[in-house]
Amino acid sequence: MRAAIVIGTGLIGTSAALALAGRGVQVYLEDHDPTQARTAAALGAGTDEAPAGPVDLAIIAVPPAHVAATLAEAQRRELARGYLDVASVKGGPRRELEALGCDLSHYIGTHPMAGRERSGPMAGTADLFEGRPWVLTPTRETDTEVLNLALELVSLCRAVPVVMDADAHDRAVALVSHTPQLVSSMVAARLAGADETAVRLCGQGILDVTRIAASDPRMWIDILSANPGPVADVLAEVAADLDETVQSLRSLQSADEDKRRGGVTGIEDVLRRGNTGRARVPGKHGAAPTAYETVTVSIGDEPGQLARIFADAGRVGVNIEDVRIEHATGQQAGLIQLTVEPKSVPGLTVALRERGWSLRP
Amino acid sequence: MRAAIVIGTGLIGTSAALALAGRGVQVYLEDHDPTQARTAAALGAGTDEAPAGPVDLAIIAVPPAHVAATLAEAQRRELARGYLDVASVKGGPRRELEALGCDLSHYIGTHPMAGRERSGPMAGTADLFEGRPWVLTPTRETDTEVLNLALELVSLCRAVPVVMDADAHDRAVALVSHTPQLVSSMVAARLAGADETAVRLCGQGILDVTRIAASDPRMWIDILSANPGPVADVLAEVAADLDETVQSLRSLQSADEDKRRGGVTGIEDVLRRGNTGRARVPGKHGAAPTAYETVTVSIGDEPGQLARIFADAGRVGVNIEDVRIEHATGQQAGLIQLTVEPKSVPGLTVALRERGWSLRP
Repeated sequence: MRAAIVIGTGLIGTSAALALAGRGVQVYLEDHDPTQARTAAALGAGTDEAPAGPVDLAIIAVPPAHVAATLAEAQRRELARGYLDVASVKGGPRRELEALGCDLSHYIGTHPMAGRERSGPMAGTADLFEGRPWVLTPTRETDTEVLNLALELVSLCRAVPVVMDADAHDRAVALVSHTPQLVSSMVAARLAGADETAVRLCGQGILDVTRIAASDPRMWIDILSANPGPVADVLAEVAADLDETVQSLRSLQSADEDKRRGGVTGIEDVLRRGNTGRARVPGKHGAAPTAYETVTVSIGDEPGQLARIFADAGRVGVNIEDVRIEHATGQQAGLIQLTVEPKSVPGLTVALRERGWSLRP
Repeated sequence: MRAAIVIGTGLIGTSAALALAGRGVQVYLEDHDPTQARTAAALGAGTDEAPAGPVDLAIIAVPPAHVAATLAEAQRRELARGYLDVASVKGGPRRELEALGCDLSHYIGTHPMAGRERSGPMAGTADLFEGRPWVLTPTRETDTEVLNLALELVSLCRAVPVVMDADAHDRAVALVSHTPQLVSSMVAARLAGADETAVRLCGQGILDVTRIAASDPRMWIDILSANPGPVADVLAEVAADLDETVQSLRSLQSADEDKRRGGVTGIEDVLRRGNTGRARVPGKHGAAPTAYETVTVSIGDEPGQLARIFADAGRVGVNIEDVRIEHATGQQAGLIQLTVEPKSVPGLTVALRERGWSLRP
């Protein structure tokens, strides 16, 4: 790939442009707001001048609702040999393109699974996609040359290509991304009107469950509006579990022992299915979460404590795979959970104890 | 407080005993399984011999379903001047005690908001309660001397006392602990039968939302069985939001523009209420999560990288309040988010850049 044009210089477009420009591709930048394109150019993502002739690849990085029109216009202008979009849903835009009579053989729908809390070109970064899955949705009509251009883009962005059917993709993101977002918001919403004393009792569990409830509603309305069917289907399944669990809990209040036993069975069932599902969520490097063990250390809050603990771990050659700090409320001390490979646990434990750290048994 | 008896030497009982013993209180240990009491004694939590006469405080640390019978028996044996339990629900046990005709003036229901993934005396630790809320539920009949004994226990365990009504406590934990657990399990349960390719697309959001879905079902059945009413009430409210959101999503698929607009409004409403609720969840030191800012750095996976970054931060006197490592899937690199006070951001950014770190804009 020698030259590419990025249409839409928000977070994703600018990040892809920065990655391509950094690897020697000539990048042209275009945005319906020329200031945004100029900002991206100033960051080193390419030039905001128009290309003299067709480039290799046109990357449409506009919100889902504008993909079809933008792509049709780009093909009308004969901007490139191949075209792709990077919107977070794939089925709807594809059907709109069909309706507009676009050339689908030179188009491929893609979705890089990367994002941030921030948006706009200023938040763009060349390594945004490193190691992340980048979904490609070729069909039988997709030209092989266009598929290869898309694979080259993914490779230049250091992402991991995953080939899927467009509708399967939309069902998958409904399951692993859109549903968790809405459910997190709904749990957090219950706190909006809660007593201050109740809120004081929040612990690490609800902190984790509600973290993404802080996300930007406008961005999520765009995403959900483009994928309403699959999200509604998954949410309806959650709703069925929820209704059954409410019934199970009510049964626990019954005077009838059989009913109570039925309630326990119902609750146990949902908790066990939760265990099974959670065990499938890939952790670091795609490994199952159970592939690692944790070592828990009490720490104070003075500057330098974390540095000391990591230095002490590094001194015995132990690599910390992940770290969680659990904070006590109302005071300074906290706990730090170090995730390491099981073989590293004994050495790390001894080394930290020798250096005066207080470990949880 | 000179002497105390702990009945039930699991995680909570043993941890309280270790804290008391460490601060010079004579602790007697009892368990329906004498091996457990002996294990706790061997860990330095006290003696598993019986006290010669009444002690100051009896701490009933048995599962919720056994609190009333154990307490009635302890009062019959005249073991102490004051009695308390540490079960995670408070209304039910209190009503059972009333039914058994116990002396309620010398009893106070309490709940330390601390726990771990592990259970049993071996998991016990003297600092388990440090900085955590410890709920006390005195009533008008509670003897002041008994309230003061409970406050002394909380203080010796370095916890933070919070006074609440027993039923308000049960509603609060239904809201901030029991409901998030069940909802996390339900989101995770949807992954149990998902395609492998879909599971590969999991990102940080679903990782956080489903973390507690890995919890032990047996422990949660005990907790939920003791608090079914309040949990069912909160879950029913979540179910109402969920049903409405499914309707909103279906409206987005409508050909009628008014319907679609109504759908957007419904989804925006639940997302915004989620923002409001999330903003109330206390972060470190009880501060709102917005009181801090994050600095994001790209790191490799070699041992010592985290140590270096913390050392570099410590060198300019910046205290890292929290840290999150976000891992790329399928490769070694990752991102680290450092949470610091806003005033520390400029100095930290400059210092890290000077030392060669690659920062996200």
